[in-house]
Amino acid sequence: MKTLLEGRRAEIEASFAKQGLMRIFQASINKLEHGALEISMPYSDAVSQQHGFFHGGAIGALADTACGYAAISMIGEDEAALTAEYKINLLAPADGDRLIAVGSIIKSGRTLIVCQGDVFIEKDGKRKLCAFMLMTMCVVKNLEHK
Amino acid sequence: MKTLLEGRRAEIEASFAKQGLMRIFQASINKLEHGALEISMPYSDAVSQQHGFFHGGAIGALADTACGYAAISMIGEDEAALTAEYKINLLAPADGDRLIAVGSIIKSGRTLIVCQGDVFIEKDGKRKLCAFMLMTMCVVKNLEHK
Amino acid sequence: MKTLLEGRRAEIEASFAKQGLMRIFQASINKLEHGALEISMPYSDAVSQQHGFFHGGAIGALADTACGYAAISMIGEDEAALTAEYKINLLAPADGDRLIAVGSIIKSGRTLIVCQGDVFIEKDGKRKLCAFMLMTMCVVKNLEHK
Amino acid sequence: MKTLLEGRRAEIEASFAKQGLMRIFQASINKLEHGALEISMPYSDAVSQQHGFFHGGAIGALADTACGYAAISMIGEDEAALTAEYKINLLAPADGDRLIAVGSIIKSGRTLIVCQGDVFIEKDGKRKLCAFMLMTMCVVKNLEHK
Repeated sequence: MKTLLEGRRAEIEASFAKQGLMRIFQASINKLEHGALEISMPYSDAVSQQHGFFHGGAIGALADTACGYAAISMIGEDEAALTAEYKINLLAPADGDRLIAVGSIIKSGRTLIVCQGDVFIEKDGKRKLCAFMLMTMCVVKNLEHK
Repeated sequence: MKTLLEGRRAEIEASFAKQGLMRIFQASINKLEHGALEISMPYSDAVSQQHGFFHGGAIGALADTACGYAAISMIGEDEAALTAEYKINLLAPADGDRLIAVGSIIKSGRTLIVCQGDVFIEKDGKRKLCAFMLMTMCVVKNLEHK
Repeated sequence: MKTLLEGRRAEIEASFAKQGLMRIFQASINKLEHGALEISMPYSDAVSQQHGFFHGGAIGALADTACGYAAISMIGEDEAALTAEYKINLLAPADGDRLIAVGSIIKSGRTLIVCQGDVFIEKDGKRKLCAFMLMTMCVVKNLEHK
Repeated sequence: MKTLLEGRRAEIEASFAKQGLMRIFQASINKLEHGALEISMPYSDAVSQQHGFFHGGAIGALADTACGYAAISMIGEDEAALTAEYKINLLAPADGDRLIAVGSIIKSGRTLIVCQGDVFIEKDGKRKLCAFMLMTMCVVKNLEHK
């Protein structure tokens, strides 16, 4: 199994820290490997919808971020990767204390990287799958991805 | 053309106001009709990614909200509608001052409502399409949608 | 683990046999369980595109069918299920002798069943993942699904 | 408005004619312009599902083909375009005599072309929207797309 490029971990952590959306979500990186990322965020007013659950848009945003950095963890030194598109199915009400998004790679090609995002809701210590994302990243040359 | 149910406008405005995510985004409703909603938000740190553009996840969240309420504007008095799934294509970097999401209806069925979301980025007074969403809402009975 | 409803296997086999598209594809059911279906088809002119590979639309159609019957294998006696929507990512050129689609269940709800379709291309006895589908079935009452 | 590249019409017609799937569908090109394609097919056993309607997979395949060639009509002389992914919502039972798919362009970029597919069912001379596709083509260099 491949490992993260030298310096890539620090790059991704610095990039993640620059995302205002992730800061306002109080999101943090739990695990980062070559082609895999887990991030999570606590429930807060900032990510809520009208019933007091996690907002579907916040769920999508967390999964998008997890998938995006999972792809970025695999690309070459002179490459960047941008989100081309994503689809998410919301599977259950996201009623809980914490949301966890796990990004992984279905297929890594030269131009496109196809990612899978599994999103879990945690309530009283129990995890349940609450959303599933399928997304496409587009690899480009010479764009700062930090 | 049909018009909004009596009281539905006030319901949607109250529901929107309860969404913590929309408040943190500083989003507001610009236009609300039967089957159509326009919402917008200014650029701010809260919706940013690492390059200082609107975060793809925030774009998805705004479009999801616009499509969702466009569907809710059409359902019956005793019905609610939940997001089943959405897909979004990001078409251009969302580099600008303001993001506008327009939700409209492709097809309204008894159980499923299929919506379209057009997202525009505004910079120096010019609007440009920057994302396109296709989403499915599921109509249910007896769930408070306020 | 649940098993197929009495008679459901025969129903699905009869329904599959009635699909002209599957006949023209020379597709057959390899495996059928509660919530899981595998079907396959040989390469032929009927499923080809301009380069002599399997047509992306034929790949989608096979995966749609695998996912659809995987969902139908789980529903109640008086229920039917219809395809609401599907998304497919084509991961590699489908250059081979045989295409295999495996439908399985991500989440089964009262109204919606979310399915996953893994499509493999077989060449000289080796299997490779060549497409991935995420799809939504809508469960309805009182519609003949045979 | 741009027009088709010299020779591109003949190339697309020849490529379409080579697709065994389109032949078995008895599909034909009705209209071809720069960035827009309309194709149609009659109802036949070859495209049927178990209830005698057009098969959802055949609907997807026709829309995929319409979108694909709409994108190919716009690319440069030395370029080819491959389907990266597509999503389709089935909006109504495709119960009719003829299916018409119209492919058009939402956004054309250097690497990705995002297309829209509107699919209509025609019965007794009346057209009704029955499916909507959102798809992504990936532009590549030096691949024969004929």
